[in-house]
Amino acid sequence: MPEKSGFDPLTLPESNATSYPEAYCAANQQRWNRRLGNHANLTNFGVNLTRIVPGGQSSCRHAHTRQDEFIYVLQGDVELETDAGVERLSAGMCAGFAAGTGNAHRFVNRSAADVLLLVVGDRTAGDAVSYPDVDMHGHMEPDGKFVFSHKDGTPY
Amino acid sequence: MPEKSGFDPLTLPESNATSYPEAYCAANQQRWNRRLGNHANLTNFGVNLTRIVPGGQSSCRHAHTRQDEFIYVLQGDVELETDAGVERLSAGMCAGFAAGTGNAHRFVNRSAADVLLLVVGDRTAGDAVSYPDVDMHGHMEPDGKFVFSHKDGTPY
Repeated sequence: MPEKSGFDPLTLPESNATSYPEAYCAANQQRWNRRLGNHANLTNFGVNLTRIVPGGQSSCRHAHTRQDEFIYVLQGDVELETDAGVERLSAGMCAGFAAGTGNAHRFVNRSAADVLLLVVGDRTAGDAVSYPDVDMHGHMEPDGKFVFSHKDGTPY
Repeated sequence: MPEKSGFDPLTLPESNATSYPEAYCAANQQRWNRRLGNHANLTNFGVNLTRIVPGGQSSCRHAHTRQDEFIYVLQGDVELETDAGVERLSAGMCAGFAAGTGNAHRFVNRSAADVLLLVVGDRTAGDAVSYPDVDMHGHMEPDGKFVFSHKDGTPY
């Protein structure tokens, strides 16, 4: 008989690991991810339960060339920063970021309590990631991993 | 300046439309979908806010050959039926359905209150859908639409 498919995401381990270059690691480790999609053996897209502690951010502000992203706010009050400015999202609100627009985004927790986001992103090959606010550029290798360089292409 | 990215999903219109053959329509129209991903112009995957009224189901029990699915229970108590039997999921629980396992699933609302699910599925081409409990088979056309036939291939 197959295994059961349902689970409580809060029972999974969480990690604040990041593949960012050293200069940007600390700012990015105030968020903790649980990999729900990987736990369910999904490969076409990732689903993370992301917990941002007060003062933390989801990531550096960024835009994908080929991969879509979607987030749903499960708990807390969070500030979404894009080229459109700052938006305050509370639990029950959501946002989507279509590939290729160049409109970069990040979520910042400026509240006093944890924020919980459900974060979905696909894994379309050949993706690249631009970071308007920091000297970083990302591109996806054939194995699916992202490699970061300076904006001028020189490696970290 | 770009438009804002955040929105309240409950402000979108909901629909109980289904592309199922006539014989299976009624059983499938006790659920109402809001298309959050489409609203955000996402194309690589779909995100629906699905409201199942008491007595309703998310879909006929089905399995995809190439597309992954993920659901998160936002509100209510729902029964997940797969080849592993019945699982009772409450708000805050989730489930994933990897492509190609053949393990079919559906969500049934046997409670007295509405169930709200966040449902994610990718749009990988060449998908087919099997339905172990009803005389139906689905396949994805090149335009992305699903066409349903009897199990022996004869059209409805």
